[in-house]
Amino acid sequence: MSLDECHIGGNVATNAGGGKAIKYGVTVRYVAGLEVITPGGEVMEVGGKLLKDATGYNLIGLLAGSEGTLGVFTRIVLRLLPVPRARTDLFCLFPAAADAIAAVPRLMTETGIVPASCEFMDREAYAAACRYLQEPEPPEDADAMLLVTLDGAEEAEVRRQARAVARLCEAAGATDLREAEDEAAAEAYWTIRRNIGKAFNAAAAFQGDEDLVVPPASIPRLVDRLRALAEQYGPAMPAYGHAADGNIHVHILPPADWTLQRWDAVLPRLLDDLYADLARLGGRISAEHGIGLKRKAHMPAVVSPVYLRSLRALKRALDPRGLLNPGKIFE
Amino acid sequence: MSLDECHIGGNVATNAGGGKAIKYGVTVRYVAGLEVITPGGEVMEVGGKLLKDATGYNLIGLLAGSEGTLGVFTRIVLRLLPVPRARTDLFCLFPAAADAIAAVPRLMTETGIVPASCEFMDREAYAAACRYLQEPEPPEDADAMLLVTLDGAEEAEVRRQARAVARLCEAAGATDLREAEDEAAAEAYWTIRRNIGKAFNAAAAFQGDEDLVVPPASIPRLVDRLRALAEQYGPAMPAYGHAADGNIHVHILPPADWTLQRWDAVLPRLLDDLYADLARLGGRISAEHGIGLKRKAHMPAVVSPVYLRSLRALKRALDPRGLLNPGKIFE
Repeated sequence: MSLDECHIGGNVATNAGGGKAIKYGVTVRYVAGLEVITPGGEVMEVGGKLLKDATGYNLIGLLAGSEGTLGVFTRIVLRLLPVPRARTDLFCLFPAAADAIAAVPRLMTETGIVPASCEFMDREAYAAACRYLQEPEPPEDADAMLLVTLDGAEEAEVRRQARAVARLCEAAGATDLREAEDEAAAEAYWTIRRNIGKAFNAAAAFQGDEDLVVPPASIPRLVDRLRALAEQYGPAMPAYGHAADGNIHVHILPPADWTLQRWDAVLPRLLDDLYADLARLGGRISAEHGIGLKRKAHMPAVVSPVYLRSLRALKRALDPRGLLNPGKIFE
Repeated sequence: MSLDECHIGGNVATNAGGGKAIKYGVTVRYVAGLEVITPGGEVMEVGGKLLKDATGYNLIGLLAGSEGTLGVFTRIVLRLLPVPRARTDLFCLFPAAADAIAAVPRLMTETGIVPASCEFMDREAYAAACRYLQEPEPPEDADAMLLVTLDGAEEAEVRRQARAVARLCEAAGATDLREAEDEAAAEAYWTIRRNIGKAFNAAAAFQGDEDLVVPPASIPRLVDRLRALAEQYGPAMPAYGHAADGNIHVHILPPADWTLQRWDAVLPRLLDDLYADLARLGGRISAEHGIGLKRKAHMPAVVSPVYLRSLRALKRALDPRGLLNPGKIFE
C-alpha cells in the first residue's frame, strides 16, 4: 500500500503484507535468497535463486520480519510471478457496514474465488481520504465500501469471477456496485484507499494507528467491538483495511476539544481493552506494521511468556551484544 | 508425493515440498498456527487462525523444517484453499532428455503459465517404476518424460493452458503427447511417478538417494553433470523430480557386481564431486528431504561457516540442553 515510498529492504525486514496478501501472500513468500550482514560483521548467504531449500533451518523465514534486529540485508533475491493478464476492480457500497463486513468471509467460502484484494473501508475512512485528495465524498447512504480486485490469466475467467462477486455482494446488501471501466478508474479507487492513513495523519496532531488482525471469521465481532469502544471512550475509530486477511487498520482520533493530557490518560485504557478483546478473538496486535518501539509494551497482551522468552533467546543467539536495532520488539 | 504414508506433523517438521510446490509453494505457506511443546516442556502457541501476523519474529517460519530439533508440534492450524475446479494432466515423451529438461524453464517464461506440477523423469526412472508396478514400459524412443499438471478455476482456462503447453513441448522436441482423458488416467501416470523412489529402493541393497536443488535455469547443466559423473564413477544415476522447482531426485545405483566395500569407497568421492558442482551452480544438498543424519557431514560443501554457526546458535537458544533430536542437521 506504500508503493510510492517503501523500499524492498523495509518490505523484507517487516515481512510486509498489504492489499494482495489474501491471494499472493506476504513478502516472505517471494524471498528466495538473502545476503545478510550479521551482527558480528560477517557476510552470510541464505538461500539463493532457489524455489525450495531444506538445507538447514529456514533462516529466511526467521529473518524476514525481524525488523532489523537480527541482520542487515544487503542483497535480496526475489521470486517473480507472471503478471496476471486480466484484472478488474469492483467498488461496492453498502448502507450498513456490518453487511459489508459479513460479506467478506462469504465471498471466498460461497464462490470459491480467491480475490487478489478485498479492502473494507467504513464511511469515515473513505470520506477522510476523499476530503484529503479533494475528491467527491461517497453518497450519503453509503456506510461502508468493499473494493474487490479480481485477477487471472484471462479475461473470461475474471469476468466470471466479477459476476459471482457482484451477485454475492448484492445478496449481502450492497446497493451500489461499480466496476472500474479501465485502469485509470481502478487506480482512482486505489489512490483513495492508499491515502486513508495519510488523510488521518494530516487531520489530527495526536492519534492512534492500529494494525489489528483476527481470524477472518471474527472480523464482524472485531468491528462491533471497535464501534462499542469508540462509544465508550469518546474517540472516533474509523476502520479500513484488508478484510479478507482479517487485518483491520483503525485510527483512533480524539474529539477536537481533547487536550493531549486527556488523550494520554484515555489511550492506554482504550488499548488495554482493545487488545484484551483481540486476545479473546485469537488475534494479534500487528498483522503487517510490526512491533518496533510502539507496540512492544503490549506484546504480553496477546502472546505468552514462553513465546516472548523464545524471541529474546533467538535475538541473543544471533546478536549477543545487542547491536542491531536495540530495544525494538522487546527490551 | 508420499501422500499414502506421510503425516502432517512430518510435513511441517520437514517443511515438505513435493510436486505442486511450483504453483502452491511448500508446506510452511499453509501453516497459520502451531502449538509447540518446547524443549523446556512448556506449551507455546505460535500464530493461530491468522493469515498475517507480524507480532514478533516469524517463529512458524523457523520451526517449519526444523526436523524436530526445536520443538514438538502438537497442534497445527492449516490454511486451506478452494479446490481447483478444473484440471488436466499432460504426459509428454521426448527422444532426448536434454530437450525435456530444456523445455521446463521455457514453459513458464514463454507461456506465462504456472503449472500445478511439472515432473521430469528420465527413461531409467520411469521404466523402473513401470517394472515395479508391472505396468508396460515406455516406448523405446522415449529418453525422458514430462508430466505436467494444469489446474484452475474453470475448464476453459485449463484447456487454453493445455494447448499452450502442448505447443511448447512439441516445439521443444516432444514426439508423443498424451492428455489424461479422465481422473483415473491421470492417477495412473501419477502412481508411476510416485513409485519411482520405491522401485529403486527395492532394486538394490545399497544405493544413494539425492534431493538436489539448483536455480531452475541451471537444471540443464545439473543433468549434464549427472550423466558425466555416472560415466566417470560407474553407478547409474537415474534422475527425476520437480524440474520446474529446480529440484531433481537422483538415485545412485551401483553396478550389480559391486561389493559394499567398493561402493563405500566410491560413493563419498562421487558425492564430493557432485556437491562441489552443486555449490558452483548455487544449489543445495536438500530441497525437501532435509538434512537429518545422512547429509549433515556434507553441509559445509554448500553453506558457509557463518551460516552453520547461526544454525547452531539458534538450536542452543531454543534447546540449550540439546534434548530434541540430538545430532540431527549438525553436531
